[in-house]
Amino acid sequence: MANRLFEALSITHPIIQAPMAGGITTAELVIAVSEAGGLGMIGAGYLNAESTRNQIQEVKAGTDKSFGINLFVPNPYKEEEDVIHRAQVSLQPFLEKLGSSGAESEFLSYEQTLGIFLEQVKVVIQEKVPVCSFTFGIPSSDVIHFLKQAGVYTIGTATTLAEAQAIEAAGMDAVVLQGSEAGGHRGNFLAEVEQSMIGLMALIPQTVDKVNIPVIAAGGIMDRRGVKAARCLGAQAAQLGTAFLTCKESGANPLHKQAILEGQQVDKTTLTKAFSGKAARGIENDFIREMREVETELPDFPIQNTLTKPIRSAAAQNNDRNMMSLWCGQNPNLAEPITAKELVHKLVDEE
Amino acid sequence: MANRLFEALSITHPIIQAPMAGGITTAELVIAVSEAGGLGMIGAGYLNAESTRNQIQEVKAGTDKSFGINLFVPNPYKEEEDVIHRAQVSLQPFLEKLGSSGAESEFLSYEQTLGIFLEQVKVVIQEKVPVCSFTFGIPSSDVIHFLKQAGVYTIGTATTLAEAQAIEAAGMDAVVLQGSEAGGHRGNFLAEVEQSMIGLMALIPQTVDKVNIPVIAAGGIMDRRGVKAARCLGAQAAQLGTAFLTCKESGANPLHKQAILEGQQVDKTTLTKAFSGKAARGIENDFIREMREVETELPDFPIQNTLTKPIRSAAAQNNDRNMMSLWCGQNPNLAEPITAKELVHKLVDEE
Repeated sequence: MANRLFEALSITHPIIQAPMAGGITTAELVIAVSEAGGLGMIGAGYLNAESTRNQIQEVKAGTDKSFGINLFVPNPYKEEEDVIHRAQVSLQPFLEKLGSSGAESEFLSYEQTLGIFLEQVKVVIQEKVPVCSFTFGIPSSDVIHFLKQAGVYTIGTATTLAEAQAIEAAGMDAVVLQGSEAGGHRGNFLAEVEQSMIGLMALIPQTVDKVNIPVIAAGGIMDRRGVKAARCLGAQAAQLGTAFLTCKESGANPLHKQAILEGQQVDKTTLTKAFSGKAARGIENDFIREMREVETELPDFPIQNTLTKPIRSAAAQNNDRNMMSLWCGQNPNLAEPITAKELVHKLVDEE
Repeated sequence: MANRLFEALSITHPIIQAPMAGGITTAELVIAVSEAGGLGMIGAGYLNAESTRNQIQEVKAGTDKSFGINLFVPNPYKEEEDVIHRAQVSLQPFLEKLGSSGAESEFLSYEQTLGIFLEQVKVVIQEKVPVCSFTFGIPSSDVIHFLKQAGVYTIGTATTLAEAQAIEAAGMDAVVLQGSEAGGHRGNFLAEVEQSMIGLMALIPQTVDKVNIPVIAAGGIMDRRGVKAARCLGAQAAQLGTAFLTCKESGANPLHKQAILEGQQVDKTTLTKAFSGKAARGIENDFIREMREVETELPDFPIQNTLTKPIRSAAAQNNDRNMMSLWCGQNPNLAEPITAKELVHKLVDEE
């Protein structure tokens, strides 16, 4: 089984670099991971078709090894003026603190988002990307069909056994199990967020007993011990986000890296919808705390994400990490500021 | 290190049966686990000194092997008439549905609870119980001193690194790390509940790197894979609750066992304060769902526990599992109705 996944992914080590969206997965990072024998992954969730193609070509220019890409599956959402207005009112004080006027937000409709997604899929096929994973749901059977016909290895993301079974039933090749430990956005699409918070110690064995496609474990894995534990539980590979985020090649904001590396955040990651409208785990800061009371009334993803963009940009410019999204899993204490190659080797070396 | 814990506990296998309170850990169960080479544990949290002594003597009559006991560390609480009255009003419909008049509740004061706890400690020392673990906090330095002087091996329960460090600093011999996967009551005492929800994949390595006392992993571990994974991560033994709850020797209500064994609950465990006033993980049922809206206004533990006792008793008599507390970890799919001896052997056998 393990060999089946390794062969399919053309990797030497059972290590996948999580496709973190928003500029973290630079071509440099993806190339370094794939060159080291793991699978580098482009986080294309927020990219348009052109940027997606550019990043793929950049990676292909830097390595002959296998690599992958992740796309966000669009889910229907509504643009409700009153909800958006209330969110804008609650965001105004942050803009003022940051001395930002806040750009006029332009919202894409669900249909536009879906259009971009389908263009991205076309680019993935045209550029012959070896591996394509999905988050926030299962793409249509047409999309899966065309990808598989083009020889692309497809991977879904599940947070529960039922979601993994749905991914298998849809004909996808493998499944990433996202444990409750994971940083960044929750990938739940059948379960409610609360029901999706299952630790890997429980989630992996109950899933591998019931699905036949290879399982990749994600969430809180930071070193060799975690990789081995995930494999003991029945996973065939580990996908790591936070550990790669602090690597030298990662494009994460230096303040984001620093917040994780300070390593005092161990009890302090939390789930929040405040940045994007969808639950995600990050290091708690002022923005998360102050937005908590309106969290249930925010617009859907990705509307809220569009609304907070000027805040996140101004915060980055002002070096104010209290209003940035500091995505992070539950194990930041083990993060190191090393190269991706060093990390891959540390993850698999037997001492 | 592993040998150090094994020797200290006088056990053959790295398996501890979780000390589930409320009648689940019968003497028969504790004896069977210890006889099989694991550590059987009496859950004495809700017992008075006399019942504590009786159960200890029953276990001692049945085995010469090592065994342990768990006590709840009392935390100050207030008896607020208006809060209690509101809770009684919200519980009334359940009593009516069950055709129960509801007994007049008698509340112990914090001082009385503390008195019982100190009597229990005296019994543990007098009866020379080999191992004593604690939940809900750290006992006073006097208590730890007297237990250690009497040769009792002391174990604390932590949900975060900071709690584990506090337990080590207090001079206790070992620490149980309770992951977010665990069934039953959360053992958090420094962290808030939300901050205590850390998966074992993240919690074990970050803790073993920073504390020197042996670490025992608890939460979602149900079979050999979990035991091995916990040890890969740096734990020296595994403590299992749900897996032992469905064993033949366990005193859990047959409906409770059945609910777990049906194994369809995998996405359906949830945290609730409705039964006791303190957050605990169990299988979601009508009582949990209907009490959710008043959950933040309930009296403290153990007042709410006293208030719901007539409901839980009547539900058990009526065979109505919708109003019983069905504590359960996040991995019920792997539960089996076997003997404790069979379970211990399955947990450690190499195939």
